[in-house]
Amino acid sequence: MAKSSFEYVRKFETEERCLPNTWIVVRIDGKGFHKFADAHGYEKPNDKRGLDLMTRCAKCVMDEFRDIKIAYGQSDEYSFVFKKDTNLYNRRSVKIMTNVNSLFASSFVYFWSEYFAETKMAYPPAFDARIVLYPTNKNLRDYLSWRQADVHVNNLYNTTFWSLVLKKGISNAEAEERLQRTLASDKNEILFSEFNINYNNEPEMFRKGTTLIWKKENSENRKCVQELAVFHCDIIKDKFWNEHEDILGPYS
Amino acid sequence: MAKSSFEYVRKFETEERCLPNTWIVVRIDGKGFHKFADAHGYEKPNDKRGLDLMTRCAKCVMDEFRDIKIAYGQSDEYSFVFKKDTNLYNRRSVKIMTNVNSLFASSFVYFWSEYFAETKMAYPPAFDARIVLYPTNKNLRDYLSWRQADVHVNNLYNTTFWSLVLKKGISNAEAEERLQRTLASDKNEILFSEFNINYNNEPEMFRKGTTLIWKKENSENRKCVQELAVFHCDIIKDKFWNEHEDILGPYS
Amino acid sequence: MAKSSFEYVRKFETEERCLPNTWIVVRIDGKGFHKFADAHGYEKPNDKRGLDLMTRCAKCVMDEFRDIKIAYGQSDEYSFVFKKDTNLYNRRSVKIMTNVNSLFASSFVYFWSEYFAETKMAYPPAFDARIVLYPTNKNLRDYLSWRQADVHVNNLYNTTFWSLVLKKGISNAEAEERLQRTLASDKNEILFSEFNINYNNEPEMFRKGTTLIWKKENSENRKCVQELAVFHCDIIKDKFWNEHEDILGPYS
Amino acid sequence: MAKSSFEYVRKFETEERCLPNTWIVVRIDGKGFHKFADAHGYEKPNDKRGLDLMTRCAKCVMDEFRDIKIAYGQSDEYSFVFKKDTNLYNRRSVKIMTNVNSLFASSFVYFWSEYFAETKMAYPPAFDARIVLYPTNKNLRDYLSWRQADVHVNNLYNTTFWSLVLKKGISNAEAEERLQRTLASDKNEILFSEFNINYNNEPEMFRKGTTLIWKKENSENRKCVQELAVFHCDIIKDKFWNEHEDILGPYS
Repeated sequence: MAKSSFEYVRKFETEERCLPNTWIVVRIDGKGFHKFADAHGYEKPNDKRGLDLMTRCAKCVMDEFRDIKIAYGQSDEYSFVFKKDTNLYNRRSVKIMTNVNSLFASSFVYFWSEYFAETKMAYPPAFDARIVLYPTNKNLRDYLSWRQADVHVNNLYNTTFWSLVLKKGISNAEAEERLQRTLASDKNEILFSEFNINYNNEPEMFRKGTTLIWKKENSENRKCVQELAVFHCDIIKDKFWNEHEDILGPYS
Repeated sequence: MAKSSFEYVRKFETEERCLPNTWIVVRIDGKGFHKFADAHGYEKPNDKRGLDLMTRCAKCVMDEFRDIKIAYGQSDEYSFVFKKDTNLYNRRSVKIMTNVNSLFASSFVYFWSEYFAETKMAYPPAFDARIVLYPTNKNLRDYLSWRQADVHVNNLYNTTFWSLVLKKGISNAEAEERLQRTLASDKNEILFSEFNINYNNEPEMFRKGTTLIWKKENSENRKCVQELAVFHCDIIKDKFWNEHEDILGPYS
Repeated sequence: MAKSSFEYVRKFETEERCLPNTWIVVRIDGKGFHKFADAHGYEKPNDKRGLDLMTRCAKCVMDEFRDIKIAYGQSDEYSFVFKKDTNLYNRRSVKIMTNVNSLFASSFVYFWSEYFAETKMAYPPAFDARIVLYPTNKNLRDYLSWRQADVHVNNLYNTTFWSLVLKKGISNAEAEERLQRTLASDKNEILFSEFNINYNNEPEMFRKGTTLIWKKENSENRKCVQELAVFHCDIIKDKFWNEHEDILGPYS
Repeated sequence: MAKSSFEYVRKFETEERCLPNTWIVVRIDGKGFHKFADAHGYEKPNDKRGLDLMTRCAKCVMDEFRDIKIAYGQSDEYSFVFKKDTNLYNRRSVKIMTNVNSLFASSFVYFWSEYFAETKMAYPPAFDARIVLYPTNKNLRDYLSWRQADVHVNNLYNTTFWSLVLKKGISNAEAEERLQRTLASDKNEILFSEFNINYNNEPEMFRKGTTLIWKKENSENRKCVQELAVFHCDIIKDKFWNEHEDILGPYS
């Protein structure tokens, strides 16, 4: 059984590496999560258990891959930002992407029962992943801002939509029609006047998504144990970044 | 919150497509599975439960992605072969790869308790994936032959190694030294003379790996339900392929 | 002057290789050749000197890169087909593409005066190149057929268009309008009834483009000198390929 | 002649774009230029005519592609740096690379007789090209420093080597042996003590290579005509960059 006569097939493999000195972002997205959420009784418009489970998985990923400086999650997606000079897997993009993605996916099933104790998972979910490179701090911050602006737009819509459906009892189609071409201010007004909801008082987790970073080490105790800090705050403005200067770091 | 001013970051994404009219192989590999196997009491040299679990996951993947014509698994790896003319995700390689990989990973945790009822999973595992293109039937068969030749070489070694360790009671290091530079015939002889094992009578699942293909539809009953057939046979020689001509199909 | 402190910049280079066992096609196209043709008094609709110059350059390229099995040219483009198993530059696509392209470009200036003895070249032209992979003989033949079908469509149009402009004396805009939405049969009819031109009697070089292949070695004389054969024939139908079976060769 | 049945072959083409917001460097290299130089009687160790011809071609390239901010040449190579935000050919790397490369190649033949009036070109030369991305100004400057450090190392060696061969009359092999494992200081000493050459007084063009940038527009006269400025100076230290701040520009 001549093994060697077959081994030429390895030459068909490729091995792309990420451009050096650029931020590496891996974003994972749930595949068909509308269906998955319905099949598992997710609450509308936001299910805290579901979001907490996503963040639990993200922590597992960050715990394994210590070169991730910051992660940002919302809805059924999570973005992981590797430091610019990471040498993980020699920066081979496919290795980085598939290891992060599969660990997230297996964690999702693994930790499921901690968050959905009374709901048996009906089938294992898939996630897709992509890897994107950003050369500058500004590009990276704009990427994260884009994701946070996305959650704002979607969550305001969903909060209004599900208020109409669940509290007014109108149909999905009717709610959709009513919200067509409305501005953010219109939706805020509907929420306030019809449901007595001040959107800005909605939970920050729902409005801002979840940001994970490593806590600074406690240098007094010289402890090496690193811990993750969880934020549900604005990451578009400068404040967050000024308070955590070490994330973007002193790269040149 | 000007969403649009951030959206330019999407232009940093890439979207590579697989060359048309080529076989697409996605191979997944367990990450650090030696450690995982030890942590979960896998039997040596082969753990049927572990192999059956892998095959259960592979079936889940094939059930979801019907353009997979054949899958081949051994040890902690599985290869999935998409038909040459698949248009899944417009042949975008990253989408295909990460969806297959994450579904396999989540299935692994999902189905775990069916195979390891008495062992709690200690932590969720990761898998890496790669995608490889093969232009001809010969190249594809050589790829699968390469993987099957690999299981032969490894399993003969492992069977002999663990016989020495478990039945002779010598140390791992001693067993390793004894097997250095031995030929296949030497290992067969050790197994036979010292342990009364005829290697060729060892279970085919361990010696040949596992092949999954779709059963031909029963045209009499006009049933559309497709089922998966499981084989532990030689796929290097022509016999298997002659008996299942439809796998490689009439491509030109 | 620490050279080594800068050398890290080499890591930013990439090195993509062509998938093995696939046909490699390099197609070069003149950049802005409408303008170039006008600036140098090319005859309309076809300038034999210009086509002959292109073919002279293609011969120069084939003479240098002996793994090219066939080349096909028309208008301001030429396609070069490397044999499936070429190992030129380890199949690095950028090396193959840029060497072929630049040699073609420098040849174009070098041989210019042999074909345009009385016209001084006004400025040096640029060419762009691309590299495309085709896994099967059928795909490759379809590629070449596509290019030859293209010359047919364009040349029939151009022949009719320039007959109207040059012989009828109508303006470009009028000729364009007249030919809008005409079928091939309409154009043939215009040529025949108004200009007494039977399109099928037009020079084959204009209607079929130019095909270059290596002549079979004369085995009697055991001469090793290879020579290029020039054809202006149909390469869409089987006849040409049956007569030159060695081009596509016995690959599996 | 069904054109459409062949057009599917276009789907085999790929279209990679350069990562946005990164410096794009195209470096071209003469193919087999040792042989070319010998065949055309280039002077040793440096032929001013040859270098001037290269620079003439580089100017032609910069004149055509106005998004090139700086070019640097030495020996048989030239690097062209496109501004970070160029949108030339939608940043398609192959288009950028092959157009620059082929225009350089055709220019080389086109302008040949202006520099080598008495030498007929024996054959048209080829050039290979590559495209490299650099995310930061520092990376870009380190790239250019790397190329200039390269010319220093090579030119000191070549100047010493050819002094030994041409003025001492020893063989190439003897000169090579003598210079093995010598340091820069050793070569300087040989040049000074044996040939009365102070290396630092050698022409800057040979020691520093050639840098091309656009002259700042004369804002007083409001003339739009841009002109190229030629330098043979150090571009490793800050001085050059401080004097021409607009090259690296105010990118963020």
